[in-house]
Amino acid sequence: MYEVELKVRASHDAVRDRLDALGAERTGAVTQVDTYYDAPHRDFAETDEALRIRREEHGDEATTRVTYKGPLVEAASKTRQEIETGVADADRFDDILVALGFSPAAVVEKERERYALDGYTVTLDTVAGLGEFVEIEREAPEAAVETTREGAVAHLRDLGLDPDDQIRTSYLGLLLNSSE
Amino acid sequence: MYEVELKVRASHDAVRDRLDALGAERTGAVTQVDTYYDAPHRDFAETDEALRIRREEHGDEATTRVTYKGPLVEAASKTRQEIETGVADADRFDDILVALGFSPAAVVEKERERYALDGYTVTLDTVAGLGEFVEIEREAPEAAVETTREGAVAHLRDLGLDPDDQIRTSYLGLLLNSSE
Repeated sequence: MYEVELKVRASHDAVRDRLDALGAERTGAVTQVDTYYDAPHRDFAETDEALRIRREEHGDEATTRVTYKGPLVEAASKTRQEIETGVADADRFDDILVALGFSPAAVVEKERERYALDGYTVTLDTVAGLGEFVEIEREAPEAAVETTREGAVAHLRDLGLDPDDQIRTSYLGLLLNSSE
Repeated sequence: MYEVELKVRASHDAVRDRLDALGAERTGAVTQVDTYYDAPHRDFAETDEALRIRREEHGDEATTRVTYKGPLVEAASKTRQEIETGVADADRFDDILVALGFSPAAVVEKERERYALDGYTVTLDTVAGLGEFVEIEREAPEAAVETTREGAVAHLRDLGLDPDDQIRTSYLGLLLNSSE
């Protein structure tokens, strides 16, 4: 499966009103603290890969997942392969990565408020150091990537947002650029 | 913490009788399938490290853990640093390792029957392709490694086994040697 995802900068208040008007269902809010790692044997900035530990809290529940992101396969929609699984202890997993020669390179912390809209997930992100964004995303098999992307564009318009404002840079990339 | 561990080849039937006589408590039996990985940037055979995914089944319960083993810090007792945590999905975690350039190098499959004996864990291992072994082990802080090792030697003697028969080669190493 591929993750089809579009992201724009947007003030959340107006988007929340449109979500309500469209009958979107608020499915929850989480805090995510993402640590991205440099590899000892590859320059992930060059190979366009990423390795991430995500610590997530919603309410009293805390979970950790490790995610590998492969290079872009479809640039327009930022589609890339993701492989992910849960990890029991975030700190110990960090210790394993460091012992293997990986090193924590950057941390991205954000509050995410999620809505379900017609099979898509709309997320209102407040990113520490960057501000407010709206993402729309959906998983798709390879053959359905293009139609799924067209649907995401249409829904973004319904929310009063301009797909041409799409930001293709990840939060990690935006943070690294802003600190340069 | 360090894992202090001694291992000898031994027929299990005689050892079980001694364990009973010493009042050891049988704490369970598990099947373990261990996959060891080669790294893309280091020769683990040279650096004396290991990265392992362990799939374990006891009864209906199946768990997966990932373990990093550092180089020997105390050769006599095979003491090395271990860092371990649980993983939700063994196959996905394997996919992540392979995407990062690691490759499955060897598989070790064994049945383990565990006993608790005076703070130590005694394990009767039946290893596919190798036969029967007995291990005695205990975790210890760095300052207690030597006394813990002396205790392990004494308990091995109590079980009718000769500490001089100690095998310092891992099951992985024994399997790789036997296939050469």
